[in-house]
Amino acid sequence: MEKPIKFALLGSGTVGTGVIKVLKENAHEIAARIGAPLELAKVLVRDMEKKRPQLANICVTDKIEEILEDPEISIVIEVMGGLHPAREYMLRAMEAGKSVVTANKDVVAQFGKDMFDMAEKQDVDFLFEASVGGGIPIITPLKQCLTANKITEVMGIVNGTTNYMLTKMTECGMEYDAVLKEAQEKGYAEADPSADVDGLDAARKAAILASLAFNTRIQLSDVSVEGISKITPMDIEYAKELGYVVKLLAVGKDSPEKGVDVRVHPVFLPMDHPLASVHGVFNAIFVRGNAIGEAMFYGPGAGSLPTASAVMADVIDVARDIVNKTFGRIRCTCYEEKKLCPLEDTKSSYYVRLLVDDKSGVLGTIATVFGNEGVSLKSVVQTKQSVVEHAEIVAITHEVEHRKILCALEGLEKLPVVDEIRSMIRVENSRG
Amino acid sequence: MEKPIKFALLGSGTVGTGVIKVLKENAHEIAARIGAPLELAKVLVRDMEKKRPQLANICVTDKIEEILEDPEISIVIEVMGGLHPAREYMLRAMEAGKSVVTANKDVVAQFGKDMFDMAEKQDVDFLFEASVGGGIPIITPLKQCLTANKITEVMGIVNGTTNYMLTKMTECGMEYDAVLKEAQEKGYAEADPSADVDGLDAARKAAILASLAFNTRIQLSDVSVEGISKITPMDIEYAKELGYVVKLLAVGKDSPEKGVDVRVHPVFLPMDHPLASVHGVFNAIFVRGNAIGEAMFYGPGAGSLPTASAVMADVIDVARDIVNKTFGRIRCTCYEEKKLCPLEDTKSSYYVRLLVDDKSGVLGTIATVFGNEGVSLKSVVQTKQSVVEHAEIVAITHEVEHRKILCALEGLEKLPVVDEIRSMIRVENSRG
Repeated sequence: MEKPIKFALLGSGTVGTGVIKVLKENAHEIAARIGAPLELAKVLVRDMEKKRPQLANICVTDKIEEILEDPEISIVIEVMGGLHPAREYMLRAMEAGKSVVTANKDVVAQFGKDMFDMAEKQDVDFLFEASVGGGIPIITPLKQCLTANKITEVMGIVNGTTNYMLTKMTECGMEYDAVLKEAQEKGYAEADPSADVDGLDAARKAAILASLAFNTRIQLSDVSVEGISKITPMDIEYAKELGYVVKLLAVGKDSPEKGVDVRVHPVFLPMDHPLASVHGVFNAIFVRGNAIGEAMFYGPGAGSLPTASAVMADVIDVARDIVNKTFGRIRCTCYEEKKLCPLEDTKSSYYVRLLVDDKSGVLGTIATVFGNEGVSLKSVVQTKQSVVEHAEIVAITHEVEHRKILCALEGLEKLPVVDEIRSMIRVENSRG
Repeated sequence: MEKPIKFALLGSGTVGTGVIKVLKENAHEIAARIGAPLELAKVLVRDMEKKRPQLANICVTDKIEEILEDPEISIVIEVMGGLHPAREYMLRAMEAGKSVVTANKDVVAQFGKDMFDMAEKQDVDFLFEASVGGGIPIITPLKQCLTANKITEVMGIVNGTTNYMLTKMTECGMEYDAVLKEAQEKGYAEADPSADVDGLDAARKAAILASLAFNTRIQLSDVSVEGISKITPMDIEYAKELGYVVKLLAVGKDSPEKGVDVRVHPVFLPMDHPLASVHGVFNAIFVRGNAIGEAMFYGPGAGSLPTASAVMADVIDVARDIVNKTFGRIRCTCYEEKKLCPLEDTKSSYYVRLLVDDKSGVLGTIATVFGNEGVSLKSVVQTKQSVVEHAEIVAITHEVEHRKILCALEGLEKLPVVDEIRSMIRVENSRG
């Protein structure tokens, strides 16, 4: 067995504690896999005074230089989170010739290119499996196992908070506000839940997934984002009746004609879709490629130990490279310039729910407006409402450009018989 | 870009044709990923006279020496299938200094150790992603992405034929014989279906998965095997009523106390288990580890292009090693001696279905026999039968050693009121 490979940990929060625990419990297996033991040499903390029982007998420092200038340390694990100084510390670590492993989706989504370029320049590894889908292996499958494919679609439930909330709304018919409160009480949602419920967290992961899947650089600003706060129990009820479940999806599509299209939004998903049975805080990523057809990767999307599982897998990978004296064997191949498909040109089916006056002929009037804008309807249903003299109309369209559905809604809004456009949600029917 | 990396194909059947197609369609992406183009130099065929339009412009030979002695060829892909001469050709290819990629579950399950030893001795790669789960990335996840875990359980739907048949029986209430005939007509089952329906194909994959998951050598003879031919529509109906689906599973479990236990048999699986919604010819592998918790990998378990996706991913991996001049970076770590848990000591819940005389007191008599053998019952239900003066009793036990359930059945068989023991199927309740 070779001499120990030393690494440093930046941050000692939830994920950092998980890393220490996994290293301790599975040291034997890990060393056997690498051919050398791993040794945690130093941990960077913000506050030296704070008591940390998990760090007993481990060298703790609040000076990044003590890690960067230590020639014994060959791997730096960044689990501090946030953009700064995480980005700068990682760049400096690579400049100092160390390989970097991170769980930081913010930095990878926003500054991925800087990171990949620096890793290539310095001939070190930069790995980030834990940045998407927590413990689920998805980055390595995209970089390695599915590389013989042209990937045309990547679609994921990548935010556990919103999936928990939508699952609860589906199972118990709860209102959005009530379910958010419960998620906050259980610790599944933050006090300020906006990053989750507004879809920003999922958008970062969508950018990372699409970049890898389509071999291009998708910026966070390229992702169109819509959260779940407008979803009502009524929408979920209609979805059920029509054979769908409502999920918040990160969607990336690549077609030679239209370009790359990346978005986050709620979706009506057919109940027999593999992603439809992903419940609660679990995550899953569905991939379509021209050789494999379809594949799905399922598991825990967050949590101390699952995230540590992904972080440590990357560390073992780097350590294997150190033992074999090879680096950057698997470069990030986000090298192609691809055009983006503007949101208005993306195509989908849509579910539209309207509150209308309960008069004869309304349904016909509405269908005509859809037709005038070139939106063909697959089904349209009118139901009585508790509100006096009102009815609800639920329409499902055939596949149509986003631009056209917006025009149709504009037209509907002007109709005197339409009191309110209550919802518009995309319907996913793409399984081949 | 470096000079082309040349490879040879042994066999030009379904998978071989898929490999050629994938290479042709995705050549650009594949070359970009490797940093060098791939070139198919030679194809070994059995019969030189046979017309093969897919091999136009490719050098074809029926002499293995022409491949083994060609110093330009650095990778050999074996997709002939069968034990011999596939095993010998692969060993000779590695002796000649070539890396080997195979889809051959038979050889990996039976002669895996010979293959790994030869690869290590010769410092070449031996990769076999396509041997389990067709296109699904599962070997690489086990060897790489989940290496920070102690894996305690691996459980898979790894045979598409039987999963298709059980799905049909569940959806349409069809009898076993009728569904087998339909599967044969659709080409999902062979004329001699025994390797699939008797569980042997799944047993080979179980041996491969368990060896990798538990870092040990599981021989095919270590796997206890039971097929699906005894499953009736009645069992499937009862399963549904009780909240389960019937699946043929490859199961591997590892516990420090009891040892490693690998088996293939039908299982009552709770409907909310991730594997329960894997329908038709799809496969999926579920893994439980002490860091990740649970993960699942889903996709097409067979087929020309999906299998080629896995084969070509391995080839790309080897080619990256060639470009980076590193080999055996990820050795097979099936190095540990672990004791096997005898089948009689394995624990499970069981579903037992009996045909009994429809007399008062029968249920009590039967419950007593179970109790006497130390088998505690979770539920027991008696239903009238169309057969005059007969009833069926369906019992679900709590978790109990296999030995005890066998003793209980022996005791039941001796009871005059028991006319027939109609089924005994394991019930999987293990989700934590």
